[in-house]
Amino acid sequence: MRSIFQEELDAVSQTLVDLTKMVSDSINKATTSLIDANITLAEEVISFDEKIDQIQHDLDARIIDIVARQQPVATDLRALLTALRMSADLERMGDLAHHVAKVARLRHPDSAVPLELQTTLQRMGHVAENMARKVGTVIESRDTALALEVETDDDEMDKLHRDLISILVSSEWKAGVASAIDITLLGRYYERFADHAVSVARRVYYLVTGEFAPQK
Amino acid sequence: MRSIFQEELDAVSQTLVDLTKMVSDSINKATTSLIDANITLAEEVISFDEKIDQIQHDLDARIIDIVARQQPVATDLRALLTALRMSADLERMGDLAHHVAKVARLRHPDSAVPLELQTTLQRMGHVAENMARKVGTVIESRDTALALEVETDDDEMDKLHRDLISILVSSEWKAGVASAIDITLLGRYYERFADHAVSVARRVYYLVTGEFAPQK
Repeated sequence: MRSIFQEELDAVSQTLVDLTKMVSDSINKATTSLIDANITLAEEVISFDEKIDQIQHDLDARIIDIVARQQPVATDLRALLTALRMSADLERMGDLAHHVAKVARLRHPDSAVPLELQTTLQRMGHVAENMARKVGTVIESRDTALALEVETDDDEMDKLHRDLISILVSSEWKAGVASAIDITLLGRYYERFADHAVSVARRVYYLVTGEFAPQK
Repeated sequence: MRSIFQEELDAVSQTLVDLTKMVSDSINKATTSLIDANITLAEEVISFDEKIDQIQHDLDARIIDIVARQQPVATDLRALLTALRMSADLERMGDLAHHVAKVARLRHPDSAVPLELQTTLQRMGHVAENMARKVGTVIESRDTALALEVETDDDEMDKLHRDLISILVSSEWKAGVASAIDITLLGRYYERFADHAVSVARRVYYLVTGEFAPQK
């Protein structure tokens, strides 16, 4: 029976990797919809989030079923419970991409992002997309060095986020309070997206090494 | 052995209830620290968050240990895995109270909240504190009617949040962009705090009835 169990574990892992690709695509499209005020793309991200939620829901049911049937102990149990937490992180990353797309939709046909912030926002989108994709490789390869790299990416995200806020509070900000609210929330969404990516990477690190990754 | 297992389940439930009280106190104190620019109280909330994290961490380890030793199936397994998710929600509520207190600390000796928003923010704090406390009773009593009431409280929170934003974008807003950023983030923290309270209440509802609570 062991090999069927192993196949089940591998399938769980594969679904997690699939989810990382989906949320990576979603944050990429959400960013483009935001910068280009592309309503079609925004709608696509918004409706695709339901699919991500469904996949996560099915995955969780599958994990619980495996735990109940196979009664795993020690390492295998820990891996399954960690998978349950990673799926929650990934589902939340999907939500955050959805939130970004909703800001794009709300401001359409205008862009929610004033010209002077577009480069910074685009970079945040790029870092976020990349982190999600890297986390997929971390889950697949269990590469702990790569897991630590995700934390370095998060430093880059934090820096971009600080840049964003400093432009916002600068005296040159002429786009008004409503726009400042949009940008504040968008900054928060990207930052949280990155936090969840770090969380997944740290969970893999712990699973592989039995130790917590050093705090930045 | 069954009775020891039952005692272990009860102890898990009791720790969850304890956590609801802690995060309820934290959001209450964080709100007061914010309105009164009370730095001592803000520091208290910030350092207490570490304690909440530790309790959650120990609780999770305890739950995983019970699953590994007792190999529960069906209802008991589901209850334990749900407890794991509720502890994550409660830990996050502690983080959000911490975030509120950090805004208070950042703006000290000023209040981060302009006079015209203090009543709304205070109400949001009151609703949040109350929701966390109610969720504790829901965990203890498994009262599904009360679980649904938490969703009604969340409607109240959403309304207060909309009020907050509408004052912010009104032409009377004179407090500047930096203050608008603070208020936007604060609004988001309270809203998310309430979302997690709803999440816990819905998990209890599902556990008791086997069905999802109707969406609002």
